[in-house]
Amino acid sequence: MAGTGVFGEILDGEVYKYYSDGEWRKSASGKSVNIVNPTTRKTQYKVQACTQEEVNKVMDIAKSAQKAWAKTPLWKRAELLHKAAALLKEHKSPIAECLVKEIAKPAKDSVTEVVRSGDLISYCAEEGVRILGQGSFLVSDSFPGNERTKYCLTSKVPLGVVLAIPPFNYPVNLAVSKIGPALIAGNSLVLKPPTQGAVSCLHMVHCFHLAGFPKGLISCVTGKGSEIGDFLTMHPGVNCISFTGGDTGVAISKKAGMIPLQMELGGKDACIVLEDADIDLAAANIVKGGFSYSGQRCTAVKVGLVMDAKEKGATFCQPYKREGNLIWPVLLDNVRPDMRIAWEEPFGPILPVIRINSVEEGINHCNASNFGLQGCVFTRDINKAMLISDAMETGSVQINSAPARGPDHFPFQGLKDSGIGSQGVTNSINMMTKVKSTVINLPTPSYTMG
Amino acid sequence: MAGTGVFGEILDGEVYKYYSDGEWRKSASGKSVNIVNPTTRKTQYKVQACTQEEVNKVMDIAKSAQKAWAKTPLWKRAELLHKAAALLKEHKSPIAECLVKEIAKPAKDSVTEVVRSGDLISYCAEEGVRILGQGSFLVSDSFPGNERTKYCLTSKVPLGVVLAIPPFNYPVNLAVSKIGPALIAGNSLVLKPPTQGAVSCLHMVHCFHLAGFPKGLISCVTGKGSEIGDFLTMHPGVNCISFTGGDTGVAISKKAGMIPLQMELGGKDACIVLEDADIDLAAANIVKGGFSYSGQRCTAVKVGLVMDAKEKGATFCQPYKREGNLIWPVLLDNVRPDMRIAWEEPFGPILPVIRINSVEEGINHCNASNFGLQGCVFTRDINKAMLISDAMETGSVQINSAPARGPDHFPFQGLKDSGIGSQGVTNSINMMTKVKSTVINLPTPSYTMG
Amino acid sequence: MAGTGVFGEILDGEVYKYYSDGEWRKSASGKSVNIVNPTTRKTQYKVQACTQEEVNKVMDIAKSAQKAWAKTPLWKRAELLHKAAALLKEHKSPIAECLVKEIAKPAKDSVTEVVRSGDLISYCAEEGVRILGQGSFLVSDSFPGNERTKYCLTSKVPLGVVLAIPPFNYPVNLAVSKIGPALIAGNSLVLKPPTQGAVSCLHMVHCFHLAGFPKGLISCVTGKGSEIGDFLTMHPGVNCISFTGGDTGVAISKKAGMIPLQMELGGKDACIVLEDADIDLAAANIVKGGFSYSGQRCTAVKVGLVMDAKEKGATFCQPYKREGNLIWPVLLDNVRPDMRIAWEEPFGPILPVIRINSVEEGINHCNASNFGLQGCVFTRDINKAMLISDAMETGSVQINSAPARGPDHFPFQGLKDSGIGSQGVTNSINMMTKVKSTVINLPTPSYTMG
Amino acid sequence: MAGTGVFGEILDGEVYKYYSDGEWRKSASGKSVNIVNPTTRKTQYKVQACTQEEVNKVMDIAKSAQKAWAKTPLWKRAELLHKAAALLKEHKSPIAECLVKEIAKPAKDSVTEVVRSGDLISYCAEEGVRILGQGSFLVSDSFPGNERTKYCLTSKVPLGVVLAIPPFNYPVNLAVSKIGPALIAGNSLVLKPPTQGAVSCLHMVHCFHLAGFPKGLISCVTGKGSEIGDFLTMHPGVNCISFTGGDTGVAISKKAGMIPLQMELGGKDACIVLEDADIDLAAANIVKGGFSYSGQRCTAVKVGLVMDAKEKGATFCQPYKREGNLIWPVLLDNVRPDMRIAWEEPFGPILPVIRINSVEEGINHCNASNFGLQGCVFTRDINKAMLISDAMETGSVQINSAPARGPDHFPFQGLKDSGIGSQGVTNSINMMTKVKSTVINLPTPSYTMG
Repeated sequence: MAGTGVFGEILDGEVYKYYSDGEWRKSASGKSVNIVNPTTRKTQYKVQACTQEEVNKVMDIAKSAQKAWAKTPLWKRAELLHKAAALLKEHKSPIAECLVKEIAKPAKDSVTEVVRSGDLISYCAEEGVRILGQGSFLVSDSFPGNERTKYCLTSKVPLGVVLAIPPFNYPVNLAVSKIGPALIAGNSLVLKPPTQGAVSCLHMVHCFHLAGFPKGLISCVTGKGSEIGDFLTMHPGVNCISFTGGDTGVAISKKAGMIPLQMELGGKDACIVLEDADIDLAAANIVKGGFSYSGQRCTAVKVGLVMDAKEKGATFCQPYKREGNLIWPVLLDNVRPDMRIAWEEPFGPILPVIRINSVEEGINHCNASNFGLQGCVFTRDINKAMLISDAMETGSVQINSAPARGPDHFPFQGLKDSGIGSQGVTNSINMMTKVKSTVINLPTPSYTMG
Repeated sequence: MAGTGVFGEILDGEVYKYYSDGEWRKSASGKSVNIVNPTTRKTQYKVQACTQEEVNKVMDIAKSAQKAWAKTPLWKRAELLHKAAALLKEHKSPIAECLVKEIAKPAKDSVTEVVRSGDLISYCAEEGVRILGQGSFLVSDSFPGNERTKYCLTSKVPLGVVLAIPPFNYPVNLAVSKIGPALIAGNSLVLKPPTQGAVSCLHMVHCFHLAGFPKGLISCVTGKGSEIGDFLTMHPGVNCISFTGGDTGVAISKKAGMIPLQMELGGKDACIVLEDADIDLAAANIVKGGFSYSGQRCTAVKVGLVMDAKEKGATFCQPYKREGNLIWPVLLDNVRPDMRIAWEEPFGPILPVIRINSVEEGINHCNASNFGLQGCVFTRDINKAMLISDAMETGSVQINSAPARGPDHFPFQGLKDSGIGSQGVTNSINMMTKVKSTVINLPTPSYTMG
Repeated sequence: MAGTGVFGEILDGEVYKYYSDGEWRKSASGKSVNIVNPTTRKTQYKVQACTQEEVNKVMDIAKSAQKAWAKTPLWKRAELLHKAAALLKEHKSPIAECLVKEIAKPAKDSVTEVVRSGDLISYCAEEGVRILGQGSFLVSDSFPGNERTKYCLTSKVPLGVVLAIPPFNYPVNLAVSKIGPALIAGNSLVLKPPTQGAVSCLHMVHCFHLAGFPKGLISCVTGKGSEIGDFLTMHPGVNCISFTGGDTGVAISKKAGMIPLQMELGGKDACIVLEDADIDLAAANIVKGGFSYSGQRCTAVKVGLVMDAKEKGATFCQPYKREGNLIWPVLLDNVRPDMRIAWEEPFGPILPVIRINSVEEGINHCNASNFGLQGCVFTRDINKAMLISDAMETGSVQINSAPARGPDHFPFQGLKDSGIGSQGVTNSINMMTKVKSTVINLPTPSYTMG
Repeated sequence: MAGTGVFGEILDGEVYKYYSDGEWRKSASGKSVNIVNPTTRKTQYKVQACTQEEVNKVMDIAKSAQKAWAKTPLWKRAELLHKAAALLKEHKSPIAECLVKEIAKPAKDSVTEVVRSGDLISYCAEEGVRILGQGSFLVSDSFPGNERTKYCLTSKVPLGVVLAIPPFNYPVNLAVSKIGPALIAGNSLVLKPPTQGAVSCLHMVHCFHLAGFPKGLISCVTGKGSEIGDFLTMHPGVNCISFTGGDTGVAISKKAGMIPLQMELGGKDACIVLEDADIDLAAANIVKGGFSYSGQRCTAVKVGLVMDAKEKGATFCQPYKREGNLIWPVLLDNVRPDMRIAWEEPFGPILPVIRINSVEEGINHCNASNFGLQGCVFTRDINKAMLISDAMETGSVQINSAPARGPDHFPFQGLKDSGIGSQGVTNSINMMTKVKSTVINLPTPSYTMG
């Protein structure tokens, strides 16, 4: 059960502690933040409201811990990550319990999220052993005018301190998708979990603690965005930010220093269904994609948005029904491009349908969006499938499937306002490293003989 | 015109010279080999019948020339190859003329072969600059139990002397597809052209001569297979054989030493046409693939082979007509697996058609062949296209096109009895090099810091 | 001669035109900006003072030109770049003449800069053909729990409009190092040259014009920083900024949108010379690195800076002599870490020498700097060479040579405040593209059989 | 203890069984082969003398088992290999016991060999997941004259049945270095262990059995070389041979079909020690390299060989002492190139020392050898280290260390008569696969847009 057993030490009375310098601590602020259970609408958990001073401390420790960690053999880094992955899977029940209570994720999906997160950590470990363990060896005489007197060795070096800010909908999975790559690459990591999802994250972080990572290498601070949000993202000690969330990301990109950013800010994923498609497949996927938890990117749908569509002639295929923060799934047919629902991200189980007369019309509608996260096309025709997916201006295109993140080693990225940088295990590790080159200058040309 | 102008020096009276030590020479044998024009059936050209002693000389020179060449900057190697490519294109007319007269290739296709060969040489040059100019830089601590005390630098080093044996059907293109990779990779090259196609090859080699390659780096010996064939392939000075041709390849693989082999020995390319295919497209491609020059892999079709099919009930869609070594194109419908034509490579414009009842039947027939060069499938259905191409046991599968080699940077290879090694510019360069590794052992662990 | 012959059309009276929509134009502003010859200290050239409206026009055209360009075969893009490279080399004299007059670069070095720039363009062309022509093909069953039902194809897609801002010291070379990668990758490009160097850049751009690139694909706007500087860097039409220069870069990174940035902001390159070094080699390299043009990163040295050192006990090995904006080379011995000269970038021929007692002391001094562009170490000892270069927190380390950019295919990048992103041909092309992935979802698992 | 506990079922009376079709079996031959303990010189173990018919059976099963295995998700293949690795490490004691008794390897080294073998299997698993899970995605318009109408997907496909023949000196490690890559790549494997080392191998194979691999995927046949040696290497069902051993390899390469070969046939590793070397380091490494078990590549040194050296003036630094098959370590100083010991592989603890007057003399001696496995150079000088290692014609060069195989992910290969193909985890996996390409032909050009 959450907060008990091995997780007992992360709880102080009824308030969960934050994690700094290898220990679970109470904030000097004496304050806490409430986490409301979206199902019961009552306070479920409390977490520490950390102070800026505590953030500074965490940053200092992260910096020095990173220097030592970068000198740890790759296989040892991997070994610790494998341990953390095993612990996470071992303790899947209490963590899944938190997910159910914090973000109302169905129990089975919650367990899946934790298990998949363990697999992700292990995959990162082995991928990183290879990415970090191999650089390039270049010679000078590839370029006109040069003899072979210069040997260039390139290494991938860590960036330093990575700040990870996952969203509420996959707080564990989208946290470890940042933590795993950061750590195997030799970085230290500071986690700022979302308020809903914070307690799941604290349990997950405890698995890293139990695995025996060095003190200060991982930290997790909780608190009010107004107090420590900007303070974290603008902190001079941060060398990289990996953020998944909404519009806040654009603001963060302005505030952050001259550092690499990995941002996934959501989308308005369009599906183009052609006449020759397997309609059963398309329907099943679209409903799953639109109404399953993974499609519900926000809890509060702005009602104006739905009304707007209704007034302009959209057809409600189900009566619009809302109770508190629960909205019954709605499929809106005959939506036209002049309706706001056609362009904005509703963050709820609202599925607008636009009838198109040609493939080009579909592509144009898709590409007119400011978002470019993912598109999908349903067709049996190999030529149309390739031509349409090439034409769609989105970071990914699914042919004959609903939008999906994963498997986690596939690249995943948004174009346009949907983000910057690319995710997926390999891309994330690469993004959290930087090239360093060492050039050996020889007094006379030398060519390797066979 | 062939053998005139800049090509005047490669001809001695009516016999073409061979190329050794940077010079055009007459064989001490005093003998020559006749090349018959397949159209006129009269002797068109004569080439030197080189002796084993002359082969030995060529091998000695190739070995020493290679050592110096391997110490030439990559960009200089590339520069010379670009020059040879430009010369080849500049002199496309006389070379194409030889192709017309030696192997009866249509004039337009002959010019195309020469131009495409020039492009291929240039592509090799730039590809090789990159492949040879970049190795890996590995560290020891990827592997469990190791600290980072060992730095491993891997280089691609040349093999030494490459023996190139192209076939008669693309004597120029399939020669340069071996010469280009061999040279840019730092090898020297000995070319044994096919008898039909030898004079085209000699002209092509002269373009390399004019480009100014070092003496002895390229040689071209002509003569009788019985005298110098096995002598060449079994020569201890040969470090790699790249062969395109027929069954001889299997024998060569037995005779050759413990050296890398790149062999393409032909195939029995099967096309599977599904009901939903674009039938016009399929028909056009199959006829082109079966009857165009590129489908005619041999000049002499064994008549038993066609009869066998006839006696067993195959339908001649055209009357079988043969005159000398010309065979009128024949499409054989209703061929059954128990006919020899279904399994052997007819080397002529004979196109057997087998009616299948299921996709599995088609795949099984395709995979039951000892050959595995290329297959093709015509279907609009993306799922069937992928599933069938995955299931076909051939080195390449074309979806919705006839079998084809090229574009020349695509991998091209045969499975089973169709060959060993992979071709295509990148693969050929890699195949003609070997990895060498240098390990720097440090007294204490050292990690690259960022 | 500059502005004559084929370059005649880029000049209007005494004012050089700007380049927009494939044509050389006069600004509607009716104003111009003077370029002073640093040697004569008189106005040498005049360029257009473009307006914000003209910038908007350029951006609009760049956007639409890019869409068509991204659909141009890679080899055609390369062919045009090879043409531009050849034209640049052909016209090296007038362009070098501009460099001499605008930035007082020695004549020989000016010619070298232009020739090397031509080579760089060609190298980019061939590198890009390969980088853009190859993606990854991933399967789903690498990740635990997945069958092979998903095939992921990754492509490198262009970013859109790239804004290139080169510095005055290598205006041509550092412009083409941005233009070449941008164009071959399928981007359009807007160039904002430095005021000193603008006319050299305009001549260079004309070579691209003569090569026949599509209208609007390349543009070059000149003018006052106060009018169009921020307007350009904050322009919503810009999808990537590649900047080389000074502190301005940090400001740009704040103003720019959520787009990829490639910034090289200079450094304070430290050389560590060990006792066992080849002292002649070290001395020659350090003097060359410190006093040659490439070491002179700025024309106006702040005199307080030198004095500060003098007052604190540094030894002037030469008398400090300044006349106008010329400073006689000075080697400052016995500099101590508490002097400002030890930390700030003097941008002039001032070479401070710090005596160290141990390798660690040298590394610590080097790493204490906020800059991290390049370091160098002179030693014969292989162990010390590797250990020190690993320990230095700079983007590159030269062993036994002065700091150097190039050969241009080597990675080149700054850590810390020295920049973001990595340069060098390959890295620049990669940086100016983004991954797009297409996932083919199959109804049943399919494995490629051999 | 060997042959007891979980290993009880591999023993029948006093004869160890062979492994076929997922079961431990007795040969129908009714015969066995004795394995003599080199220390006691008495028969220690007995193994089955398999028949050619049993080999045929194994080959048939291997072929069909492979087809199913190639359709197993990569992560499942990896999971099984991880299990086998864990079992191997768990049972390190009884296996090490066999090594001690069969090949007289010191107990501690024997345990190390088994543990390292487990790590190797796991490393292969994760490396293969990546190598097999990723191909290339090429487009046609890289090559001049082509529009983008062809998409080429390359996969790495298994070869089929791999025959593994490890040597006696590392029977377990050099068996798993073939088994691991073969299996993760989707091949089936037939193991022919050396007579000395066979029982160690049978125990090791049982760990794969216990891990639950499919029936017939792995087999292990024991017996007389005269009966099944050539029969195996010439068997038409074999698609790849991976052999480590001595001269036999050259003969095998002649007998084998047209299939990929990976052969490591030993060497005559030369060390060049320069004046500036760390002499203690060099001496310690050379003695370790020459006299430790890893240097003893054969049990029976030919005495003519040593005498030859003595008669020609070589100095015995220790008296030459031989008792049975034990030879006391001997360091032979002042050896000259005209002595046989300078050229042949003594396979015993004999260390010849040649005094050289220049670096060139050392390199020349090294390169004059027909062997080219590994060289080493001891020097502190970075320039000499690089120049000499470049000049040595060996597959690997160790700078400042004795010859060594490993860490196991480093490439390892012999040039000249030392072998063909490259080893090391990555290279071995690549070597045991072949490229297959699938080309999607589109009706109109299509470019991926971003």
